[in-house]
Amino acid sequence: MKSVALSGLIAVSLMASSLMHEAKQAGLKPIPSNKKALFKLINNPKNPITKAKVHLGEQLYFDPRLSGSEHLSCNACHHIGLYGADGLPDAIGNKWRHNIHHLNSPTVYNAVFNKRQFWDGRAKNLEAQAQGPLQTPFEMAATKTHVVQVVTSIPQYKKEFQKAYGNKKITFILVADTIASFERTLVTPAPYDKFLNGDKNALTPIQKKGLKTFIKLGCVSCHNGINLGGEMQPFGIYAKYKFANIGNFKGNKNGLVKVPTLRNILETAPYFHNGAEKTITGAIKEMGRIQLGIKVTNKQAHLIKEFFKSLTGKRPALAYPKIPASTSSTPKPPKAPLKPNIDYKL
Amino acid sequence: MKSVALSGLIAVSLMASSLMHEAKQAGLKPIPSNKKALFKLINNPKNPITKAKVHLGEQLYFDPRLSGSEHLSCNACHHIGLYGADGLPDAIGNKWRHNIHHLNSPTVYNAVFNKRQFWDGRAKNLEAQAQGPLQTPFEMAATKTHVVQVVTSIPQYKKEFQKAYGNKKITFILVADTIASFERTLVTPAPYDKFLNGDKNALTPIQKKGLKTFIKLGCVSCHNGINLGGEMQPFGIYAKYKFANIGNFKGNKNGLVKVPTLRNILETAPYFHNGAEKTITGAIKEMGRIQLGIKVTNKQAHLIKEFFKSLTGKRPALAYPKIPASTSSTPKPPKAPLKPNIDYKL
Repeated sequence: MKSVALSGLIAVSLMASSLMHEAKQAGLKPIPSNKKALFKLINNPKNPITKAKVHLGEQLYFDPRLSGSEHLSCNACHHIGLYGADGLPDAIGNKWRHNIHHLNSPTVYNAVFNKRQFWDGRAKNLEAQAQGPLQTPFEMAATKTHVVQVVTSIPQYKKEFQKAYGNKKITFILVADTIASFERTLVTPAPYDKFLNGDKNALTPIQKKGLKTFIKLGCVSCHNGINLGGEMQPFGIYAKYKFANIGNFKGNKNGLVKVPTLRNILETAPYFHNGAEKTITGAIKEMGRIQLGIKVTNKQAHLIKEFFKSLTGKRPALAYPKIPASTSSTPKPPKAPLKPNIDYKL
Repeated sequence: MKSVALSGLIAVSLMASSLMHEAKQAGLKPIPSNKKALFKLINNPKNPITKAKVHLGEQLYFDPRLSGSEHLSCNACHHIGLYGADGLPDAIGNKWRHNIHHLNSPTVYNAVFNKRQFWDGRAKNLEAQAQGPLQTPFEMAATKTHVVQVVTSIPQYKKEFQKAYGNKKITFILVADTIASFERTLVTPAPYDKFLNGDKNALTPIQKKGLKTFIKLGCVSCHNGINLGGEMQPFGIYAKYKFANIGNFKGNKNGLVKVPTLRNILETAPYFHNGAEKTITGAIKEMGRIQLGIKVTNKQAHLIKEFFKSLTGKRPALAYPKIPASTSSTPKPPKAPLKPNIDYKL
């Protein structure tokens, strides 16, 4: 009996080794367990991560005063508590406006591993990305001047900028860079990474089956690399996306759309660029249909969903930042309308 | 020389003792330094504070899914990072609506020490208060059913409710009670408390002068007790409030308005129920004029402002809560309008 059990174990172990090999061959990569290697990956040599920048960037990330209304922070749509997203189909921004394309807020967790940022990939990194929503009228609706005025009106912020950058002038770009430094630290290693880093037992048997299915069906052709996504790809290769009319988003000028990361995907419904798909199995099947030209069975979708559980990672512990107070020179928020609109019914 | 210096010290020390005595005579009370005494003060025997409730209440406080839009949490207006307020004159709520009276969001810090909650004092404690904004159409705009559905759709929340309350049914009231338990812990002891608790050197000489002025002018007649405020008082006794037309708020049915706490007052501009006054010295002078029938001089206002610095307290350290994910049965947010409004100009 013993030897049977043992040979069974060896078989499972060999299977796991071969699956690990297969996954790597297919282009899947783990978040490195080695801290130095990880730092190298998340760092931007042109804007090196330092403790001072991360500490300051975290405060700025949570500070609603940076927005034009002084009501919305980065965290309003990329909610640290909700796995870096907002759970809404399309984001709600300044004056309760939506993006013209009804775009779903992508998670900020692991965004550092994306090759491009934004659904149309127009930003090459988090530094460039952070400049966008701050200024977009239907997001934070701030001007560059407003952002700089807020930050420089608060002595504590000025002190921390000096600590982080010496006497470098505080500009809008520097504020965005600082927020990006904080965002670069938001990575969530998961059981999946343990597995690819060599721990054969980090995935459950059903998760291994799911990973095998994920590779076999060809999902890896777009969802690969460390982030199982993050590059630009055509969308709707074999068929038209079933919710294409919602927002009528066409991708970038070449019709390419950013492949979303699958890390923490079970925590960040709804799905797709316009958040129109509510369930993960629905999303998996739709992807098979329009991107791979196949019919994903219920069983396959279920197995892949099980694999996705291994992608739910551990979020870094964050202290809620104690943001420094405004001063008399901090710009005041725009005046509220004198006639409040109270026509909304429950 | 030595004896002169010594007698000087004794004189200062006697002065401090007498000021301490005077402050207590005038009805000012410190946050107790004794933990048991403090717990007794912040606890609600009908909803006793427990670790399990506070931990759960903190998550609920930060969870936007409790609102009708699933976009606004309690923290959107009572921002933990911004000393429990939002820095706006009048709060922005569901669909970017304002309160009909343009009411300014009062700080959640130390709200436990208020005798009444809301500007019109209609809630007697934080448990009753928490039920309000959740349901108000121009605040979080949720229905009782929505709140219960969200919470009970999330297994982690159900587990934590069971830990906190055993098999008690999860109702809207229980959710509000749990949020209140968290809020009860948000107290910020300050140098002022150290002083009243016997540390004569906890206030600077100028802060002592400010406290003396504060008592002498009669500010203590309304701003007394532990919270230097928190009771109901008539507003505009000697003259009409200069911004009375903004929102036309008349107080409760007896014309009484809640006296705001002065704790952390320098961190929570703008001032008054409609947030119309931007500076603290302006607020001090206006109070003298309309509540005490006196003209507060620039020097007096300056001294009182210096005293207020001793009321800026230490906020408890909070870990940013890792809110549990939605499930397929979590109610979905209302559908976004298909035609986004993008007419807003920067």
